Amino acid sequence: MNVLTVGSVAIDTVETPYGRLERALGGSATYASIAASFFAKTGLVAVVGGDFPRRYINLLKRRGVDLAGLQQIPDGKTFYWSGYYEGDMNQATTRETLLNVFESFNPAIPERYRNVPFVLLGNIHPALQLEVLEQMHRPRLVFCDTMNYWIQSEPKLLEKVFRKVQVVCINDGEACQFTGTSSLLSAAARLMKLGPRWIIIKKGAHGVHLYGPKNFFALPAIPLTKVLDPTGAGDTFAGAAIGHLAGARKLDENTLRKAVAVGTVMASYCVQDFRCRRTVRLTPKEIETRLRQLMSYVRFS
Amino acid sequence: MNVLTVGSVAIDTVETPYGRLERALGGSATYASIAASFFAKTGLVAVVGGDFPRRYINLLKRRGVDLAGLQQIPDGKTFYWSGYYEGDMNQATTRETLLNVFESFNPAIPERYRNVPFVLLGNIHPALQLEVLEQMHRPRLVFCDTMNYWIQSEPKLLEKVFRKVQVVCINDGEACQFTGTSSLLSAAARLMKLGPRWIIIKKGAHGVHLYGPKNFFALPAIPLTKVLDPTGAGDTFAGAAIGHLAGARKLDENTLRKAVAVGTVMASYCVQDFRCRRTVRLTPKEIETRLRQLMSYVRFS
Repeated sequence: MNVLTVGSVAIDTVETPYGRLERALGGSATYASIAASFFAKTGLVAVVGGDFPRRYINLLKRRGVDLAGLQQIPDGKTFYWSGYYEGDMNQATTRETLLNVFESFNPAIPERYRNVPFVLLGNIHPALQLEVLEQMHRPRLVFCDTMNYWIQSEPKLLEKVFRKVQVVCINDGEACQFTGTSSLLSAAARLMKLGPRWIIIKKGAHGVHLYGPKNFFALPAIPLTKVLDPTGAGDTFAGAAIGHLAGARKLDENTLRKAVAVGTVMASYCVQDFRCRRTVRLTPKEIETRLRQLMSYVRFS
Repeated sequence: MNVLTVGSVAIDTVETPYGRLERALGGSATYASIAASFFAKTGLVAVVGGDFPRRYINLLKRRGVDLAGLQQIPDGKTFYWSGYYEGDMNQATTRETLLNVFESFNPAIPERYRNVPFVLLGNIHPALQLEVLEQMHRPRLVFCDTMNYWIQSEPKLLEKVFRKVQVVCINDGEACQFTGTSSLLSAAARLMKLGPRWIIIKKGAHGVHLYGPKNFFALPAIPLTKVLDPTGAGDTFAGAAIGHLAGARKLDENTLRKAVAVGTVMASYCVQDFRCRRTVRLTPKEIETRLRQLMSYVRFS
């Protein structure tokens, strides 16, 4: 196993201008591990309740995701989120969040996971992200995501996490919120001062920035006429990116750039259907085709 | 002369978080002609009043801008705008707009301007844009900009203008407003149906999109830690882009892409100081250096 994803596995009810889906499979670790599974042998650490549908387990298994780290609490209920997107769908409005089994989650990393070289800390409480890191044996590269909620409520703990990872991967609003600046360049510089070698700033439909020790890189999002459901795009991006890195031989500038491109492609497929419906049935050829398209979108001489 | 820019020449008082400038040189045709002058022999059609400072005339002359088309109404006052930028400075708040001589402006194109092959219709009343086009002898390429105000008040006239130009160059909000869609890809497709071969959508700090008959192209903005004054960035972009096209031998996809890159570079210099302070004193080497930087920002394999 090359990639370990840690985060939430959830049951979501979501509504967008294009429809409504009841009790669908969601969660940061779900999206991330499905995306990573296209590029590397991937395992998952998360918790679900006794109500977690067998078919969702099977879906993850079919993608080859190793589920030895998925705790199931028989008399608990799975983390549940419901919400909706309106207008330009840039931000979800939450109707209900039930932490359920997540409230007392302690990520126990199975012994055979502890040597995994690539670790993706999906969006969960930064204290849990730290717990995970403590159990790992010197991973080669740690990717870390978070959300505005933790930036506001646990900035000190989050800073501790950032100090221990090589890649911070967050969205533009969060980068500015955490660093108290309105320039992404300044935000990235401040984040890098904490230790991370790479800062990836996700900008939704506006694409993505990669800030590295020597250079700056940017890609547009794949232009789409319709976004059906933007949920999970960021997790899909991060999962695909770390999956690509795990399969690469070096971790130089161009490899990171390619990882960002692969993440962009997978995220674009993600938002073209509800939940992970589109991503689970992707073919390597579809991924390659869109990657070539993306390359052509930024080429000039 | 290769490029003709039509639009406003104004006196502006602007305030940003970084300072305040009283009665400075502004206006869409000012920014555009200064930017274009770095790449092509450029003329300007606009109107000013008797109060227009001699030093601003000299500034434009020093940039080699042909002023035969600049009408001066001795007993009139120059178009005046005052406003301020706050926060992320994405949008100016207007304090005062005095149209003055602009109220009765009739763009009279000097005879020797009528064969100019590249025409930039800066942001003015679409009726005036049409008047300009009627006086021109089959220009090779017409670029057209506008603003939300005309989209709302004169959509029919504006559509008439769009039907007569080869390049529509507007910002993302305006593109969505005019076409009634929230996807830039759909907005560009609808605009192209009216006739223009190329649609350039400016997204401020998020960069720029170019939609063409066969392809899509995107560039990020040059990352900056500080934007001193965003005014005129769009006009500077358009002026530089059409200036580059006027100097190029063909008008194929790659030439348009390069023009968008040149525009991006010039716009980035523009916003690094108040008004056109930075752009007027640029050197070809500075432009070339940043263009190479921009190329490196999107390169991956």
